Amino acid sequence: MTSTVKLHPPCFVPKARSSSPAAAALALKPRTHHFSPKLRFLTKPIYHLNELSLPSLPKRPGMSTAFSVKSSLIDPDGGVLVDLVVDEKDRAARMTEAESLPRARLTRIDLEWVHVISEGWASPLKGFMRETEYLQTLHFNCLRLEDGSVVNMSLPIVLAIDDETREAIGGSDSVGLVGPEGDLVGILRRIEIYKHNKEERIARTWGTTAPGLPYVDVAIASAGDWLIGGDLEVLKPIKYNDGLDHYRLSPKQLRQEFDRRQADAVFAFQLRNPVHNGHALLMNDTRKRLLEMGYKNPILLLHPLGGFTKADDVPLDVRMEQHSKVLEDGVLDPQTTIVAIFPSPMHYAGPTEVQWHAKARVNAGANFYIVGRDPAGMGHPTEKRDLYDPDHGKKVLSMAPGLEKLNILPFRVAAYDTVEKKMAFFDPSRAKDFLFISGTKMRNYARSGENPPDGFMCPGGWEVLVNYYKSLQAEESTPQQTVLLA
Amino acid sequence: MTSTVKLHPPCFVPKARSSSPAAAALALKPRTHHFSPKLRFLTKPIYHLNELSLPSLPKRPGMSTAFSVKSSLIDPDGGVLVDLVVDEKDRAARMTEAESLPRARLTRIDLEWVHVISEGWASPLKGFMRETEYLQTLHFNCLRLEDGSVVNMSLPIVLAIDDETREAIGGSDSVGLVGPEGDLVGILRRIEIYKHNKEERIARTWGTTAPGLPYVDVAIASAGDWLIGGDLEVLKPIKYNDGLDHYRLSPKQLRQEFDRRQADAVFAFQLRNPVHNGHALLMNDTRKRLLEMGYKNPILLLHPLGGFTKADDVPLDVRMEQHSKVLEDGVLDPQTTIVAIFPSPMHYAGPTEVQWHAKARVNAGANFYIVGRDPAGMGHPTEKRDLYDPDHGKKVLSMAPGLEKLNILPFRVAAYDTVEKKMAFFDPSRAKDFLFISGTKMRNYARSGENPPDGFMCPGGWEVLVNYYKSLQAEESTPQQTVLLA
Repeated sequence: MTSTVKLHPPCFVPKARSSSPAAAALALKPRTHHFSPKLRFLTKPIYHLNELSLPSLPKRPGMSTAFSVKSSLIDPDGGVLVDLVVDEKDRAARMTEAESLPRARLTRIDLEWVHVISEGWASPLKGFMRETEYLQTLHFNCLRLEDGSVVNMSLPIVLAIDDETREAIGGSDSVGLVGPEGDLVGILRRIEIYKHNKEERIARTWGTTAPGLPYVDVAIASAGDWLIGGDLEVLKPIKYNDGLDHYRLSPKQLRQEFDRRQADAVFAFQLRNPVHNGHALLMNDTRKRLLEMGYKNPILLLHPLGGFTKADDVPLDVRMEQHSKVLEDGVLDPQTTIVAIFPSPMHYAGPTEVQWHAKARVNAGANFYIVGRDPAGMGHPTEKRDLYDPDHGKKVLSMAPGLEKLNILPFRVAAYDTVEKKMAFFDPSRAKDFLFISGTKMRNYARSGENPPDGFMCPGGWEVLVNYYKSLQAEESTPQQTVLLA
Repeated sequence: MTSTVKLHPPCFVPKARSSSPAAAALALKPRTHHFSPKLRFLTKPIYHLNELSLPSLPKRPGMSTAFSVKSSLIDPDGGVLVDLVVDEKDRAARMTEAESLPRARLTRIDLEWVHVISEGWASPLKGFMRETEYLQTLHFNCLRLEDGSVVNMSLPIVLAIDDETREAIGGSDSVGLVGPEGDLVGILRRIEIYKHNKEERIARTWGTTAPGLPYVDVAIASAGDWLIGGDLEVLKPIKYNDGLDHYRLSPKQLRQEFDRRQADAVFAFQLRNPVHNGHALLMNDTRKRLLEMGYKNPILLLHPLGGFTKADDVPLDVRMEQHSKVLEDGVLDPQTTIVAIFPSPMHYAGPTEVQWHAKARVNAGANFYIVGRDPAGMGHPTEKRDLYDPDHGKKVLSMAPGLEKLNILPFRVAAYDTVEKKMAFFDPSRAKDFLFISGTKMRNYARSGENPPDGFMCPGGWEVLVNYYKSLQAEESTPQQTVLLA
């Protein structure tokens, strides 16, 4: 579907384009089967760049003036997108090999990381971190490559094992990785085992060691005292069979889809909450700004996080249903939006984690990243305050080593304008007209069945939330009533 | 005293040489008054490079083959050494101005930082950090400069103020800094006040928030809840009048001294403990290695830390006396050694702090840095273990952004060889022959008046320590006896 046209995007930088043959090959295959019937609008032919009137490309030394338009506008970190899934023809042999190796057991969150690494979201990382990578991540939030260049890497992507596993591995150079269901998932090669100093990891990643950090409680506190790094091979693509796998597009698939749509800018929006009209406002506003900058076809990657989230966040399936309503209701334009799941687990590590969120989207082909107030933040687990200064996320992101090539788009706070009766950018000159509806307040509305102010969220999306909280209350009330009756 | 000779140092990199006119001018002035009479060996004319047989310099484009030999082998971070002491002619006017400004009070440790910043140890930092620098330090251990280059900066160099001071400053753009004795010390201009999140600062700097970190207890716990950053001007050079000021050579003075000695390599050794023969072994071994590499005149910068240290460390005056004995006894060669005080306070922040220790020495002209086991480390304040993995310091240092131009010299562990009866590099093949004498063990020997094994430390140096601990015991026993007698 690549068209051969003359194109001159306003910020066109030849170096930043993907030149991998794989990407070019993929761009030729029509791919529609990743989208659910519900989100059918995404499968429509949407945008024909070759129908546009395009300025001609000035001649550059060593370049043809006619070339394939690709929306792979930005190179993945390290230049090549990592892909660690074993070729189908080698699968049986690798499985046999894996069966012969000592084993390490993966938790569900470990498996999410295997997924993340195997598809290249963490490119150029090729496996769980060895100590050299781990230390650079903890201290510098970035990795230096052999050629001296620097890529961003702010979260330790590590695999913990306990004493018994370490002993069982002995002097083996490789281990088989066993998923939470007991199936062999992959092989870790050229392994290195080193100490898991949890206190230091937590302090340097979260900037606190207070008890009650969700990821720490679930994934670190009870984990083993050793970390095992090595090169990963995954026996087959990771699937969850939860009815949402079609949303889980890999960075390669996303890049292919951007190519197919002939995007000349891709702006990513990370979220782990339902989309309200404030979010929509800023996504639409961003598109407007990009058009004003001269881009002809900016594509929005609406990219909900699909891995581990804390217990009181809205679950992934509900969020996906809500997001699809938002598009069905026309709040976002399906023609210029791709909805897909980002398979990473959530750390709630604020300024440290927002770098990961942005870096992974670079690998998926996004060259613009929207960042708001307190990204990846949460309340302090033991004190009555935000864990992070709400402005630090965007400040840290804008200065992060290795992310210089990404355009950061900070946005103004949106709130409910009680005069205009819609979500609008907060205007400090008439502050009293604005109502801030936090996630907590939104959940309380939905729980109590009370409607939020008109214009806060599209009715279809709101209904999804109300139904979810109703079902929760039904579940919660059943055992309680039993107790009361007993 | 610069000689015009033809020289071809083995790792000569013209770009890394200081080209500042100030450095060149300084190299012409003989300077001897910085050394105490006790260390008279340092004032002798020591090394005449022009007496050596030197290979001729190959012609390089744009370079004269005859040039002034300068030991300023490495550029300060940012290219120019920062010097923030007001010119004498402007002093009175600035003092008058400072008197008119709102004031911020400095603790003794704050004053040490003023000293450090004003002399350029933290170049290119020109004052206490604003939030942008603070965040980069906490998250990335480095600062990006306007030209896109990166300098190392691992410790937050910040000034805390309390609510009252913040209120008193109001909208003023500048503040006067008042020393612990009540005297006006300097001015901070173009100030920025931002929140002092102590928990986050501590967690990200130390990798723990456990109670009992010496710097935290003394300098952070009771500090104010705001940080004030800005450009520093110091009204006159900081002096302590403790009889040791002549040891406090600024980076500019050190570079001048290296120039005067016509060093072609400068290797720095940071310490906060008495020098035993194990230290001496590795310093002498380093010199040997540098000579083997082809350097003709490597100079050792023996550089004890002179700022805040924890209560059970040996005090600075005792250490300086001990160091001078080590040189008098000939354990180190006075002809190729410079002893000076590094005015920074100590954080005991292990891998984070060792970067600061190395970076500051680059600014003082060192192009080689010796790093040993567990640099800037200590025991965990609440657990029975080292706070840091003893190998992490040198690993982190070797990967630290902004320190690529510095040659890191990791060294093998030295221990007391009970067969050879001397300090020697530990030989794991006959581990049982070696005795590790920790700082604690050393202090216990000295305290009890017991002699350590022959060859552990030169007798003159040991005597200094024994006398110090005797004086301590006398002090301690006096009030106790009083109590017993009462």
